[in-house]
Parts: sequence; structure tokens; C-alpha cells
Amino acid sequence: MWQEYPLIKVELRALEDFLESSFSSKRNRLDAISRGVLFAGGKRIRPAFTILCAMCGKYDRERILPLAACVETLHTATLVHDDIIDDADLRRGAPTVVREQGADIAVFTGDYLLAKALVFFLKGGLEDIDLGQIAAAIEAMCKGEADQFFDRGHIPDFRRYLGRIMKKTALLFAASCTLGAHAAGCDQSVVREARRFGLYYGCAFQIADDLLDVSSERHVEGKPVMHDIKEGVFTLPVLLAAARNPETADIFRSVGKKGAVASEVLETLRATGAIDASLEIKERYRKKALSHLSRLPQGENTEILKAFVHRI
Amino acid sequence: MWQEYPLIKVELRALEDFLESSFSSKRNRLDAISRGVLFAGGKRIRPAFTILCAMCGKYDRERILPLAACVETLHTATLVHDDIIDDADLRRGAPTVVREQGADIAVFTGDYLLAKALVFFLKGGLEDIDLGQIAAAIEAMCKGEADQFFDRGHIPDFRRYLGRIMKKTALLFAASCTLGAHAAGCDQSVVREARRFGLYYGCAFQIADDLLDVSSERHVEGKPVMHDIKEGVFTLPVLLAAARNPETADIFRSVGKKGAVASEVLETLRATGAIDASLEIKERYRKKALSHLSRLPQGENTEILKAFVHRI
Repeated sequence: MWQEYPLIKVELRALEDFLESSFSSKRNRLDAISRGVLFAGGKRIRPAFTILCAMCGKYDRERILPLAACVETLHTATLVHDDIIDDADLRRGAPTVVREQGADIAVFTGDYLLAKALVFFLKGGLEDIDLGQIAAAIEAMCKGEADQFFDRGHIPDFRRYLGRIMKKTALLFAASCTLGAHAAGCDQSVVREARRFGLYYGCAFQIADDLLDVSSERHVEGKPVMHDIKEGVFTLPVLLAAARNPETADIFRSVGKKGAVASEVLETLRATGAIDASLEIKERYRKKALSHLSRLPQGENTEILKAFVHRI
Repeated sequence: MWQEYPLIKVELRALEDFLESSFSSKRNRLDAISRGVLFAGGKRIRPAFTILCAMCGKYDRERILPLAACVETLHTATLVHDDIIDDADLRRGAPTVVREQGADIAVFTGDYLLAKALVFFLKGGLEDIDLGQIAAAIEAMCKGEADQFFDRGHIPDFRRYLGRIMKKTALLFAASCTLGAHAAGCDQSVVREARRFGLYYGCAFQIADDLLDVSSERHVEGKPVMHDIKEGVFTLPVLLAAARNPETADIFRSVGKKGAVASEVLETLRATGAIDASLEIKERYRKKALSHLSRLPQGENTEILKAFVHRI
């Protein structure tokens, strides 16, 4: 995905080397397990954002790469823990840690990755304010996941849904951008725009992800579909459909109990126009992201970000 | 336990208030769940060490309490995650998070507590070097738990056992002491002695805990006995017994398969003199702790620590 942009491709290659050498202990089994999930083909969006936002200021690879590694490692930690909750079989196309090693090791691998993320953060030599961002992002991710868990079976309103995806997803994107811009010595106003860019991109990203879950009856990009609905986790398309036609709520709620089938859910979402309405909302957040992106100092780096945002 | 020492009692009371107000959100279910485990009657040893070591320097409650809260919250996070692994029913006499809320919420509650620990750390306004201690302690705890997990069924040698308990337990005690002394502006040599005190205390503490597991046929202090052996986790008494009489190894290994019973294990440990030998080693580490403690600037605080160490 980043292959066509030499500017970022080179840095991400250096990031792979950094991560490789940071999880290379032969004696530490957690390193081997961490490598398995770190190098299973993640898209490296968050670290790429850190790097590209840092290019708005004085780019210093020695400082920025550890921060890029920090956000990617943190993200990977949450994936490992999320997979325990979802009891997932596959992640990035490979068997999950929980499936291969059991929940016990998956818990510690996630914790270990969190600790390593802190170690990388320190290597970036940043300030308290940035650690505050990281801590707040982790805290928010936990809250978002807990909200989602306790909301199971309930269709949230838009406000609650938005709060959930901000916490679950968008704040880490925001932190990824902020860390880069701040470490590169950008002005406060630039750091703020970078943060908002990441935040709104994160919202659009999660809405797209949620749409993917209901977009087809079959697996898409290696992910199982209708997984959320089956678990009683209701996202944007469902809440919009239920708002437009309250009678449809029962259809969605019955999926987990093997009542309605995937085709019926799809049909309902299409009939109420909920898919198109979700796409529109996603588009709105994408535009917000682009608008903040346009207020950053423009260069090849922001062009890459722009091209990337257009791909959601 | 701290009741007889007004100097620390007052500070720990303030710590309770700090923790209470830090996990007080009515809307955040993770706060309520965290409170359940934070206030289930933990002994507060680690934060007490932070506070008492800080009293070797310029004690500033505003700075020290958040650090004390940091180490206690971190410790609690590891308990919540450990209970998932052990599938434990009780912790501090109350039902565990995993038992009451399920593994999903237990994973996030632990992560949430980790994030809060970072937030508290920041409130203490410490430096990178201290965050490095925290990160290293978390990293080590994960490695120690993973070592223990992968070693199941194998009787470790003393060196490996010592490495495991250092990582699992002693490094967090060491960090608790270091943070306090460092934040109170103590000389590097004092910080170093405080660290060693914590490290050796932690070793003695874990050996005592491991002895508790094999000390009786019945529950002790609300903990199930022979739990480790049943899980194939072999600690100091077992490795000493097996070293003295290699034929006993089969007895220990068969416990998990419902071969040997608790009484037989106890009898074997006593017959080989492994219990007494373990007590001697514990005593050695306690003395090491006391020796480093005696090199700290002496005062009422170190007297309290001394009295406390004598209680292991």
C-alpha cells in the first residue's frame, strides 16, 4: 500500500528493522510470539501517520522511529487482547495468539507488548505531555471496549456509537499523529491539526470497518462477516436502520440467537437505506480529516496522507 | 498491619482517598470493577515501600502519593490478569474479576489499571529513568509469568527459579522503592540501596509465598494450597527436594495427574528437609534486604521497614 511512495517506504523499511531487532531475543519466548503477530502483515497505518506527520517538522529518524514503533506495538497489544475477547481464529491472515498459545499466553503477550511500547516511547525522548496522550489512548481503548461489551444486545444511539469508536479506535490514530508532529518540533497549532486529522480519520476508518462487517454474506479480506451482529454488538448501519424503521430492531437482535440470517440482515440494511447513509457519514468524517490535513504545512508527506485518506 | 505506625498509617489513609477519587466515575463501569479489586483488602506493601523510602529524602506528599498509587495500581493490574491465567475464584478474599465479570472484562480491566498506573506516574512528575523502571518491571513480570508457564512440568534449577521470582515479583518491589527514593531527591547511592532492599525483600516475599503453597493440606489465608504443584509449577521447596533426592521428582510431577496427594507431597518435602532449607534461603534474602536497609539514612521510616521485614 505504501510501496508507491518512496518517502514513506524507506522509513517503514527502517521501522521493520527496528522492530525486528527489538524482538529478537532467542531465549525470550514472548519475543518469538510477539514477532509472529507483529510481522503478520499489518498495514502500519498508525506508524506511517506518526512518520508522515513528523515530516511536517524537523524529521529526525532516530527520534521518530521509536515512536512509530511505540504506536504500532501498542496497537498490536490491543489486537492480541481483543482476539482473546472475540475468541478469534485469524488475525492478519495468521492464527491468533490466543488460538495458537492459549488465553494465558495471549494475556501476557499483550501486556509484554504494552511494556515494550513504553520502552520505545522512552527511546523517542518525548515529554510527559506525550506520555499522557499514550496513557489516555490506552485508557480510552479499554473504556471503549468495555462500553461495547456492556452494550451488547442494545442498539446505541449515534452519540454513544461515536463515543465508542472515538475511544476504541480514533484516539490512538490521533495520538499517533500528535506524537510525530510534537517530536518533530512543530508549532502547537500544527500539532493540533495533526491530532484532529488523526481523530477524524480514525472515525472514518472504524465506520468503514463496521460497514465491512455487514457488507457481504461471505468473508471479506480474511475477516468473518456479521461477527459483530452475532455477538450483539450493533454498529452504525444497524443503528441507522433501526432509527429509520424501529421494527427492524428485532431482526438484528435475533441474529445471535440464530433467528435472522445474514441475507435477511443485508436485505434489511439495504431496504432502509442504512448502508448508503453510513457511507455518507463515513464520507463526512473523511472530509473532516482531509480538511484538517490541508491545514498542515503542505509537502510530499501530506500528499501521501491525502492519497491514503482517499482510499478508505 | 500498618496500624501501629502512625507515620505510615496517615499516608496510606491519604493513598486510599487518592485511589478512591481516581476511580470514582459513576458512568465508567471499569472504575466500579477496578474499585472492587483495589479495595478488597490488599496489604499495600508496595506503596508503603514507596512512601517509606521517599521519607529518606525530602518527602512531598503531592508527588509521592501518585507514585504510590502507580505501583499499587500496577500490582493490581497484574493480579487481575494473573487470575485469568489461574482461573482463580478468590482474590483478597473476594470473588475475582474473571469469576464475576468473565475473562473479557478481566483483560480490559487489567489493561485499564495499567493505563491508570501510567496516568498516576505522570502526576508524580518523574523523569524518564523512572518510567524506564516501570516499563522494565512490567516487561519482566510478563517474562517471568511466561517462563513459569512454559516451564510447567519441569523442575527448574535454583538459578532459573531465582530469575523467575526476580522477574515475577522482586523487580516491582525494587521499582517501588526506587521511585520513592528518587522522587524525594535522595542521592544516587541511597536510591541504589533502596532498590536493592526492595529487590531482596521481593525475593524473600516470593519464597515465603511459595512456601505457603506447600505449607499445609488445607487453605491458608484464603489461598488454595498445592495450587502451583497441581498446575505443574515447581518452586523452591520442590526443586530442593528433587535435588536432594531425585527419586522424589516423580511424586511432584504426578500431583497434577491426581497421583500423589497433598499429604504425600508434604511428607516428601519434610523428609528431604526441603522445607527447612527453603526457610533458610528465605532467611538469607531477608538478611540481605535488612543489610541494604541499614545503609539507608536511618529514621522512624526505616524502623518501620525493619519491623515489617521481620514479619515475613
